[in-house]
Amino acid sequence: MAGEKRKGLQLLDFWVSPFGQRCRIALDEKALPYEYLEQDLGNKSELLIRSNPVHKKIPVLVHDGRPVCESLIIVQYIDEAFSSSSSLLPSDPYARAQARFWADYIDKKVYDCGTRLWKTKGEPQQQARKEMVEILKTLEGALGDKPYFGGDEFGFVDVAFVPFTAWFLTYERFGEISVEKECPKLAAWAKRCGERESVKKNLSPPEKVYEFIATLKKKFGIE
Amino acid sequence: MAGEKRKGLQLLDFWVSPFGQRCRIALDEKALPYEYLEQDLGNKSELLIRSNPVHKKIPVLVHDGRPVCESLIIVQYIDEAFSSSSSLLPSDPYARAQARFWADYIDKKVYDCGTRLWKTKGEPQQQARKEMVEILKTLEGALGDKPYFGGDEFGFVDVAFVPFTAWFLTYERFGEISVEKECPKLAAWAKRCGERESVKKNLSPPEKVYEFIATLKKKFGIE
Repeated sequence: MAGEKRKGLQLLDFWVSPFGQRCRIALDEKALPYEYLEQDLGNKSELLIRSNPVHKKIPVLVHDGRPVCESLIIVQYIDEAFSSSSSLLPSDPYARAQARFWADYIDKKVYDCGTRLWKTKGEPQQQARKEMVEILKTLEGALGDKPYFGGDEFGFVDVAFVPFTAWFLTYERFGEISVEKECPKLAAWAKRCGERESVKKNLSPPEKVYEFIATLKKKFGIE
Repeated sequence: MAGEKRKGLQLLDFWVSPFGQRCRIALDEKALPYEYLEQDLGNKSELLIRSNPVHKKIPVLVHDGRPVCESLIIVQYIDEAFSSSSSLLPSDPYARAQARFWADYIDKKVYDCGTRLWKTKGEPQQQARKEMVEILKTLEGALGDKPYFGGDEFGFVDVAFVPFTAWFLTYERFGEISVEKECPKLAAWAKRCGERESVKKNLSPPEKVYEFIATLKKKFGIE
Protein backbone atom coordinates (compact mmCIF):
# COMPACT_ATOMS: atom_id res chain seq x y z
CA MET A 1 0.00 0.00 0.00
CA ALA A 2 1.22 3.49 -0.79
CA GLY A 3 2.93 5.16 2.15
CA GLU A 4 3.18 1.92 4.11
CA LYS A 5 6.72 1.08 5.15
CA ARG A 6 7.80 -2.35 3.99
CA LYS A 7 9.59 -4.55 6.50
CA GLY A 8 12.88 -6.33 5.92
CA LEU A 9 15.53 -5.53 3.34
CA GLN A 10 15.06 -4.33 -0.23
CA LEU A 11 17.87 -3.54 -2.64
CA LEU A 12 17.25 -1.05 -5.44
CA ASP A 13 19.84 -1.97 -8.02
CA PHE A 14 20.78 -2.38 -11.69
CA TRP A 15 22.18 -5.76 -12.79
CA VAL A 16 25.54 -4.68 -14.27
CA SER A 17 26.46 -2.12 -11.58
CA PRO A 18 29.68 -2.98 -9.74
CA PHE A 19 28.43 -0.76 -6.90
CA GLY A 20 25.20 -2.74 -6.64
CA GLN A 21 27.12 -6.02 -6.76
CA ARG A 22 29.10 -4.95 -3.71
CA CYS A 23 25.85 -4.76 -1.75
CA ARG A 24 24.56 -8.08 -3.07
CA ILE A 25 27.83 -9.80 -2.13
CA ALA A 26 27.82 -8.23 1.35
CA LEU A 27 24.19 -9.29 1.92
CA ASP A 28 25.02 -12.86 0.90
CA GLU A 29 28.21 -12.90 3.00
CA LYS A 30 25.96 -12.13 5.97
CA ALA A 31 23.35 -14.65 4.75
CA LEU A 32 20.66 -11.96 4.80
CA PRO A 33 17.53 -12.53 2.73
CA TYR A 34 16.43 -9.48 0.73
CA GLU A 35 14.11 -8.44 -2.05
CA TYR A 36 15.96 -7.45 -5.24
CA LEU A 37 14.28 -4.56 -7.08
CA GLU A 38 15.81 -4.05 -10.55
CA GLN A 39 15.57 -0.38 -11.55
CA ASP A 40 15.01 1.17 -14.97
CA LEU A 41 17.67 3.91 -14.95
CA GLY A 42 16.21 5.51 -18.08
CA ASN A 43 12.92 6.02 -16.26
CA LYS A 44 13.64 6.29 -12.56
CA SER A 45 10.99 4.98 -10.21
CA GLU A 46 9.28 7.12 -7.62
CA LEU A 47 10.70 4.70 -5.02
CA LEU A 48 14.29 5.35 -6.18
CA ILE A 49 13.85 9.13 -6.24
CA ARG A 50 12.18 9.12 -2.84
CA SER A 51 14.82 6.78 -1.36
CA ASN A 52 17.83 8.69 -2.71
CA PRO A 53 16.60 12.25 -3.36
CA VAL A 54 20.14 13.68 -3.25
CA HIS A 55 21.91 11.52 -5.85
CA LYS A 56 18.94 9.64 -7.41
CA LYS A 57 21.28 6.69 -7.99
CA ILE A 58 21.36 2.98 -7.34
CA PRO A 59 22.22 1.10 -5.22
CA VAL A 60 19.93 1.92 -2.31
CA LEU A 61 19.36 -0.50 0.54
CA VAL A 62 16.02 -0.01 2.27
CA HIS A 63 15.89 -1.52 5.76
CA ASP A 64 12.47 -1.52 7.43
CA GLY A 65 11.54 1.44 5.24
CA ARG A 66 14.72 3.45 5.93
CA PRO A 67 17.06 4.02 2.96
CA VAL A 68 20.85 3.80 3.02
CA CYS A 69 22.73 5.15 -0.05
CA GLU A 70 26.26 4.92 -1.50
CA SER A 71 27.64 1.41 -1.87
CA LEU A 72 30.57 1.54 0.58
CA ILE A 73 28.29 3.11 3.19
CA ILE A 74 25.72 0.37 2.54
CA VAL A 75 28.36 -2.35 2.97
CA GLN A 76 29.52 -0.80 6.27
CA TYR A 77 25.89 -0.47 7.37
CA ILE A 78 25.26 -4.15 6.62
CA ASP A 79 28.41 -5.01 8.58
CA GLU A 80 27.42 -2.91 11.60
CA ALA A 81 23.65 -3.48 11.69
CA PHE A 82 24.05 -7.26 11.37
CA SER A 83 27.11 -7.71 13.51
CA SER A 84 26.28 -11.16 14.90
CA SER A 85 27.79 -12.92 11.84
CA SER A 86 31.48 -12.54 10.96
CA SER A 87 32.65 -9.01 10.18
CA LEU A 88 33.73 -7.68 6.81
CA LEU A 89 35.78 -4.91 8.42
CA PRO A 90 38.57 -5.89 10.82
CA SER A 91 38.13 -5.00 14.50
CA ASP A 92 41.51 -3.27 14.91
CA PRO A 93 41.15 0.51 14.28
CA TYR A 94 44.37 0.75 12.25
CA ALA A 95 43.42 -2.20 10.05
CA ARG A 96 39.96 -0.65 9.60
CA ALA A 97 41.54 2.63 8.47
CA GLN A 98 43.71 0.75 5.97
CA ALA A 99 40.69 -1.14 4.62
CA ARG A 100 38.76 2.12 4.25
CA PHE A 101 41.75 3.71 2.50
CA TRP A 102 41.89 1.01 -0.18
CA ALA A 103 38.12 0.89 -0.68
CA ASP A 104 38.19 4.68 -1.11
CA TYR A 105 41.09 4.36 -3.58
CA ILE A 106 39.05 1.88 -5.64
CA ASP A 107 36.05 4.24 -5.52
CA LYS A 108 38.09 7.22 -6.67
CA LYS A 109 40.04 5.48 -9.40
CA VAL A 110 38.76 2.29 -11.01
CA TYR A 111 35.31 3.07 -12.44
CA ASP A 112 36.20 6.51 -13.78
CA CYS A 113 39.36 5.26 -15.46
CA GLY A 114 37.53 2.20 -16.83
CA THR A 115 34.87 4.46 -18.34
CA ARG A 116 37.53 6.56 -20.08
CA LEU A 117 38.98 3.32 -21.50
CA TRP A 118 35.85 2.60 -23.54
CA LYS A 119 34.39 6.10 -23.94
CA THR A 120 37.44 7.88 -25.36
CA LYS A 121 39.77 7.41 -28.31
CA GLY A 122 43.31 8.46 -29.26
CA GLU A 123 45.41 10.28 -26.66
CA PRO A 124 42.82 10.30 -23.80
CA GLN A 125 42.36 6.53 -24.26
CA GLN A 126 46.15 5.98 -24.22
CA GLN A 127 46.29 8.00 -21.00
CA ALA A 128 43.46 5.92 -19.47
CA ARG A 129 45.29 2.71 -20.47
CA LYS A 130 48.46 3.87 -18.73
CA GLU A 131 46.49 4.91 -15.66
CA MET A 132 44.55 1.63 -15.47
CA VAL A 133 47.77 -0.40 -15.46
CA GLU A 134 49.15 1.86 -12.69
CA ILE A 135 45.93 1.53 -10.66
CA LEU A 136 45.89 -2.24 -10.97
CA LYS A 137 49.59 -2.48 -10.07
CA THR A 138 49.02 -0.24 -7.02
CA LEU A 139 46.18 -2.51 -5.92
CA GLU A 140 48.31 -5.59 -6.55
CA GLY A 141 50.96 -4.01 -4.32
CA ALA A 142 48.36 -3.59 -1.56
CA LEU A 143 47.30 -7.23 -1.95
CA GLY A 144 50.90 -8.43 -1.75
CA ASP A 145 51.17 -12.16 -1.10
CA LYS A 146 47.98 -12.38 0.95
CA PRO A 147 45.11 -14.52 -0.35
CA TYR A 148 42.67 -11.63 0.17
CA PHE A 149 42.99 -7.88 0.71
CA GLY A 150 41.60 -8.60 4.17
CA GLY A 151 44.43 -11.10 4.85
CA ASP A 152 43.36 -14.72 5.26
CA GLU A 153 39.71 -13.73 5.20
CA PHE A 154 37.59 -12.21 2.43
CA GLY A 155 36.73 -8.71 3.69
CA PHE A 156 35.68 -5.12 3.02
CA VAL A 157 38.26 -4.30 0.32
CA ASP A 158 37.59 -7.60 -1.45
CA VAL A 159 33.86 -6.77 -1.49
CA ALA A 160 34.65 -3.27 -2.80
CA PHE A 161 36.92 -4.45 -5.61
CA VAL A 162 35.69 -7.88 -6.70
CA PRO A 163 32.72 -6.63 -8.80
CA PHE A 164 35.23 -4.89 -11.09
CA THR A 165 36.76 -8.26 -11.94
CA ALA A 166 33.62 -8.84 -14.04
CA TRP A 167 34.66 -5.70 -15.96
CA PHE A 168 38.28 -6.79 -16.51
CA LEU A 169 37.36 -8.42 -19.85
CA THR A 170 35.77 -5.16 -21.03
CA TYR A 171 38.79 -3.16 -19.88
CA GLU A 172 41.10 -5.66 -21.61
CA ARG A 173 39.26 -5.62 -24.93
CA PHE A 174 38.73 -1.86 -25.17
CA GLY A 175 41.98 -0.92 -23.42
CA GLU A 176 44.15 -3.61 -25.00
CA ILE A 177 45.69 -4.56 -21.68
CA SER A 178 46.14 -7.98 -20.08
CA VAL A 179 45.41 -8.11 -16.35
CA GLU A 180 46.92 -11.62 -16.18
CA LYS A 181 50.17 -10.42 -17.77
CA GLU A 182 50.44 -7.06 -15.97
CA CYS A 183 49.21 -8.24 -12.55
CA PRO A 184 49.38 -12.04 -12.16
CA LYS A 185 48.75 -11.93 -8.38
CA LEU A 186 45.67 -9.78 -8.88
CA ALA A 187 44.42 -12.16 -11.59
CA ALA A 188 44.91 -15.08 -9.16
CA TRP A 189 43.03 -13.15 -6.46
CA ALA A 190 40.15 -12.51 -8.88
CA LYS A 191 39.97 -16.24 -9.68
CA ARG A 192 40.11 -17.13 -5.97
CA CYS A 193 37.27 -14.72 -5.16
CA GLY A 194 35.28 -16.00 -8.13
CA GLU A 195 35.11 -19.45 -6.54
CA ARG A 196 33.38 -18.01 -3.49
CA GLU A 197 29.61 -18.63 -3.26
CA SER A 198 28.62 -14.97 -2.65
CA VAL A 199 30.73 -13.80 -5.58
CA LYS A 200 29.85 -16.59 -8.02
CA LYS A 201 26.16 -15.93 -7.45
CA ASN A 202 26.28 -12.14 -7.85
CA LEU A 203 28.92 -11.23 -10.41
CA SER A 204 27.68 -10.36 -13.90
CA PRO A 205 29.15 -12.73 -16.54
CA PRO A 206 32.10 -10.81 -18.09
CA GLU A 207 30.79 -11.42 -21.64
CA LYS A 208 27.46 -9.82 -20.66
CA VAL A 209 29.26 -6.77 -19.27
CA TYR A 210 31.22 -6.51 -22.52
CA GLU A 211 28.03 -6.77 -24.63
CA PHE A 212 26.35 -4.13 -22.47
CA ILE A 213 29.24 -1.69 -22.95
CA ALA A 214 29.55 -2.47 -26.68
CA THR A 215 25.83 -1.58 -27.02
CA LEU A 216 26.37 1.64 -25.03
CA LYS A 217 29.31 2.57 -27.30
CA LYS A 218 27.08 2.15 -30.35
CA LYS A 219 24.32 4.18 -28.71
CA PHE A 220 26.78 7.01 -27.98
CA GLY A 221 28.19 6.79 -31.51
CA ILE A 222 31.69 5.83 -30.32
CA GLU A 223 33.37 3.62 -32.91
CA MET B 1 67.12 9.49 14.09
CA ALA B 2 66.56 8.33 10.51
CA GLY B 3 64.54 5.15 10.32
CA GLU B 4 63.47 5.36 13.97
CA LYS B 5 59.71 5.37 14.44
CA ARG B 6 58.51 8.36 16.41
CA LYS B 7 56.01 7.71 19.18
CA GLY B 8 52.74 9.57 19.65
CA LEU B 9 50.78 11.51 17.08
CA GLN B 10 52.10 13.70 14.29
CA LEU B 11 49.93 15.53 11.78
CA LEU B 12 51.37 16.38 8.37
CA ASP B 13 49.26 19.29 7.22
CA PHE B 14 49.05 22.64 5.43
CA TRP B 15 47.54 25.58 7.31
CA VAL B 16 44.69 26.55 4.96
CA SER B 17 43.52 23.02 4.11
CA PRO B 18 39.92 22.32 5.16
CA PHE B 19 40.80 18.62 5.10
CA GLY B 20 43.69 19.17 7.52
CA GLN B 21 41.49 21.32 9.75
CA ARG B 22 39.06 18.42 10.09
CA CYS B 23 41.84 16.35 11.65
CA ARG B 24 43.02 19.18 13.94
CA ILE B 25 39.46 19.71 15.20
CA ALA B 26 38.93 15.97 15.77
CA LEU B 27 42.23 15.69 17.67
CA ASP B 28 41.24 18.63 19.89
CA GLU B 29 37.72 17.29 20.40
CA LYS B 30 39.39 14.17 21.80
CA ALA B 31 41.90 16.30 23.76
CA LEU B 32 44.80 14.45 22.12
CA PRO B 33 48.20 16.14 22.10
CA TYR B 34 50.02 15.94 18.75
CA GLU B 35 52.94 17.41 16.88
CA TYR B 36 51.90 19.66 13.98
CA LEU B 37 54.21 19.38 10.98
CA GLU B 38 53.47 22.11 8.39
CA GLN B 39 54.31 20.84 4.90
CA ASP B 40 55.72 22.72 1.92
CA LEU B 41 53.43 21.46 -0.85
CA GLY B 42 55.65 22.97 -3.54
CA ASN B 43 58.54 20.83 -2.33
CA LYS B 44 57.10 17.73 -0.72
CA SER B 45 59.08 16.24 2.15
CA GLU B 46 60.45 12.73 2.12
CA LEU B 47 58.27 12.09 5.19
CA LEU B 48 55.09 13.08 3.32
CA ILE B 49 55.94 10.96 0.27
CA ARG B 50 56.88 7.99 2.43
CA SER B 51 53.75 8.37 4.61
CA ASN B 52 51.30 8.74 1.71
CA PRO B 53 53.02 7.14 -1.31
CA VAL B 54 49.70 6.63 -3.14
CA HIS B 55 48.27 10.17 -3.11
CA LYS B 56 51.28 12.17 -1.79
CA LYS B 57 48.79 14.56 -0.16
CA ILE B 58 48.19 16.12 3.22
CA PRO B 59 46.72 15.53 5.72
CA VAL B 60 48.45 12.44 7.05
CA LEU B 61 48.16 11.39 10.68
CA VAL B 62 51.12 9.33 11.88
CA HIS B 63 50.37 7.32 15.00
CA ASP B 64 53.38 5.57 16.58
CA GLY B 65 55.05 5.58 13.17
CA ARG B 66 52.04 4.25 11.24
CA PRO B 67 50.41 6.62 8.73
CA VAL B 68 46.68 7.10 8.16
CA CYS B 69 45.62 9.06 5.05
CA GLU B 70 42.46 10.77 3.75
CA SER B 71 40.79 13.19 6.15
CA LEU B 72 37.47 11.42 6.76
CA ILE B 73 39.33 8.14 7.33
CA ILE B 74 41.67 9.93 9.74
CA VAL B 75 38.71 11.39 11.69
CA GLN B 76 37.09 7.94 11.93
CA TYR B 77 40.44 6.46 12.99
CA ILE B 78 40.80 9.08 15.75
CA ASP B 79 37.24 8.28 16.86
CA GLU B 80 37.83 4.52 16.94
CA ALA B 81 41.41 4.37 18.22
CA PHE B 82 40.70 6.79 21.09
CA SER B 83 37.23 5.61 21.99
CA SER B 84 37.38 6.31 25.73
CA SER B 85 36.35 9.96 25.22
CA SER B 86 32.98 10.89 23.70
CA SER B 87 32.36 9.67 20.15
CA LEU B 88 32.14 11.81 17.02
CA LEU B 89 30.12 9.15 15.20
CA PRO B 90 26.81 8.03 16.74
CA SER B 91 26.58 4.47 18.06
CA ASP B 92 23.39 3.51 16.18
CA PRO B 93 24.29 1.87 12.81
CA TYR B 94 21.59 3.76 10.88
CA ALA B 95 22.63 7.13 12.32
CA ARG B 96 26.27 6.24 11.50
CA ALA B 97 25.30 5.50 7.88
CA GLN B 98 23.49 8.84 7.65
CA ALA B 99 26.50 10.70 9.09
CA ARG B 100 28.81 8.95 6.60
CA PHE B 101 26.43 9.83 3.76
CA TRP B 102 26.56 13.56 4.51
CA ALA B 103 30.30 13.61 5.10
CA ASP B 104 30.73 11.85 1.75
CA TYR B 105 28.37 14.37 0.11
CA ILE B 106 30.50 17.24 1.45
CA ASP B 107 33.64 15.50 0.18
CA LYS B 108 32.22 15.00 -3.29
CA LYS B 109 30.68 18.43 -3.71
CA VAL B 110 31.91 21.40 -1.68
CA TYR B 111 35.65 21.74 -2.39
CA ASP B 112 35.41 21.02 -6.10
CA CYS B 113 32.54 23.46 -6.61
CA GLY B 114 34.28 26.08 -4.46
CA THR B 115 37.41 25.78 -6.58
CA ARG B 116 35.40 26.33 -9.76
CA LEU B 117 33.92 29.47 -8.16
CA TRP B 118 37.32 31.21 -8.03
CA LYS B 119 39.19 29.41 -10.81
CA THR B 120 36.70 29.92 -13.65
CA LYS B 121 34.99 32.85 -15.32
CA GLY B 122 31.83 33.44 -17.36
CA GLU B 123 29.49 30.50 -17.92
CA PRO B 124 31.41 27.87 -15.89
CA GLN B 125 31.53 30.30 -12.95
CA GLN B 126 27.79 30.98 -13.24
CA GLN B 127 27.23 27.22 -13.22
CA ALA B 128 29.43 26.83 -10.12
CA ARG B 129 27.52 29.63 -8.38
CA LYS B 130 24.21 27.88 -9.07
CA GLU B 131 25.62 24.57 -7.87
CA MET B 132 27.10 26.05 -4.69
CA VAL B 133 23.74 27.51 -3.68
CA GLU B 134 22.10 24.11 -4.33
CA ILE B 135 24.79 22.29 -2.32
CA LEU B 136 24.46 24.67 0.63
CA LYS B 137 20.67 24.47 0.54
CA THR B 138 20.84 20.66 0.45
CA LEU B 139 23.14 20.71 3.49
CA GLU B 140 20.86 23.19 5.24
CA GLY B 141 18.01 20.76 4.61
CA ALA B 142 20.02 17.97 6.24
CA LEU B 143 20.74 20.21 9.25
CA GLY B 144 17.07 21.10 9.62
CA ASP B 145 16.27 22.69 12.97
CA LYS B 146 18.93 20.79 14.88
CA PRO B 147 21.77 22.75 16.52
CA TYR B 148 24.35 20.45 14.93
CA PHE B 149 24.33 17.93 12.08
CA GLY B 150 24.91 15.33 14.80
CA GLY B 151 21.74 16.49 16.64
CA ASP B 152 22.30 18.06 20.05
CA GLU B 153 25.99 17.16 19.93
CA PHE B 154 28.77 18.36 17.64
CA GLY B 155 29.74 15.26 15.62
CA PHE B 156 31.28 13.69 12.52
CA VAL B 157 29.39 15.73 9.88
CA ASP B 158 30.05 18.95 11.78
CA VAL B 159 33.78 18.13 11.82
CA ALA B 160 33.65 17.32 8.10
CA PHE B 161 31.89 20.54 7.11
CA VAL B 162 32.92 23.22 9.59
CA PRO B 163 36.38 23.93 8.04
CA PHE B 164 34.59 25.10 4.89
CA THR B 165 32.89 27.86 6.87
CA ALA B 166 36.33 29.58 6.88
CA TRP B 167 36.04 29.49 3.07
CA PHE B 168 32.51 30.97 2.94
CA LEU B 169 33.89 34.51 2.69
CA THR B 170 36.04 33.50 -0.30
CA TYR B 171 33.07 31.76 -1.95
CA GLU B 172 30.91 34.81 -1.28
CA ARG B 173 33.37 37.32 -2.73
CA PHE B 174 34.33 35.37 -5.84
CA GLY B 175 30.94 33.73 -6.31
CA GLU B 176 28.84 36.75 -5.40
CA ILE B 177 26.58 34.75 -3.15
CA SER B 178 25.44 35.40 0.41
CA VAL B 179 25.39 32.34 2.67
CA GLU B 180 23.50 34.32 5.32
CA LYS B 181 20.80 35.29 2.83
CA GLU B 182 20.52 31.97 0.99
CA CYS B 183 20.90 29.71 4.03
CA PRO B 184 20.27 31.52 7.33
CA LYS B 185 20.12 28.29 9.38
CA LEU B 186 23.45 27.17 7.96
CA ALA B 187 24.96 30.58 8.74
CA ALA B 188 23.68 30.28 12.32
CA TRP B 189 25.16 26.78 12.57
CA ALA B 190 28.54 28.10 11.33
CA LYS B 191 28.47 30.81 13.99
CA ARG B 192 27.48 28.29 16.68
CA CYS B 193 30.35 25.98 15.70
CA GLY B 194 32.76 28.90 15.57
CA GLU B 195 32.22 29.51 19.28
CA ARG B 196 33.45 26.03 20.08
CA GLU B 197 37.00 25.78 21.47
CA SER B 198 38.22 23.11 19.00
CA VAL B 199 36.89 25.09 16.04
CA LYS B 200 37.95 28.56 17.20
CA LYS B 201 41.49 27.32 17.72
CA ASN B 202 41.88 25.55 14.38
CA LEU B 203 39.94 27.42 11.72
CA SER B 204 41.92 29.69 9.41
CA PRO B 205 40.76 33.33 9.63
CA PRO B 206 38.40 33.86 6.63
CA GLU B 207 40.34 36.96 5.50
CA LYS B 208 43.56 34.90 5.39
CA VAL B 209 41.84 32.25 3.28
CA TYR B 210 40.62 34.98 0.93
CA GLU B 211 44.11 36.51 0.64
CA PHE B 212 45.60 33.07 -0.02
CA ILE B 213 43.15 32.41 -2.86
CA ALA B 214 43.52 35.97 -4.25
CA THR B 215 47.30 35.34 -4.43
CA LEU B 216 46.72 31.96 -6.12
CA LYS B 217 44.44 33.63 -8.67
CA LYS B 218 47.17 36.14 -9.52
CA LYS B 219 49.75 33.36 -9.74
CA PHE B 220 47.52 31.44 -12.19
CA GLY B 221 46.85 34.63 -14.14
CA ILE B 222 43.07 34.56 -13.46
CA GLU B 223 41.73 38.11 -13.39
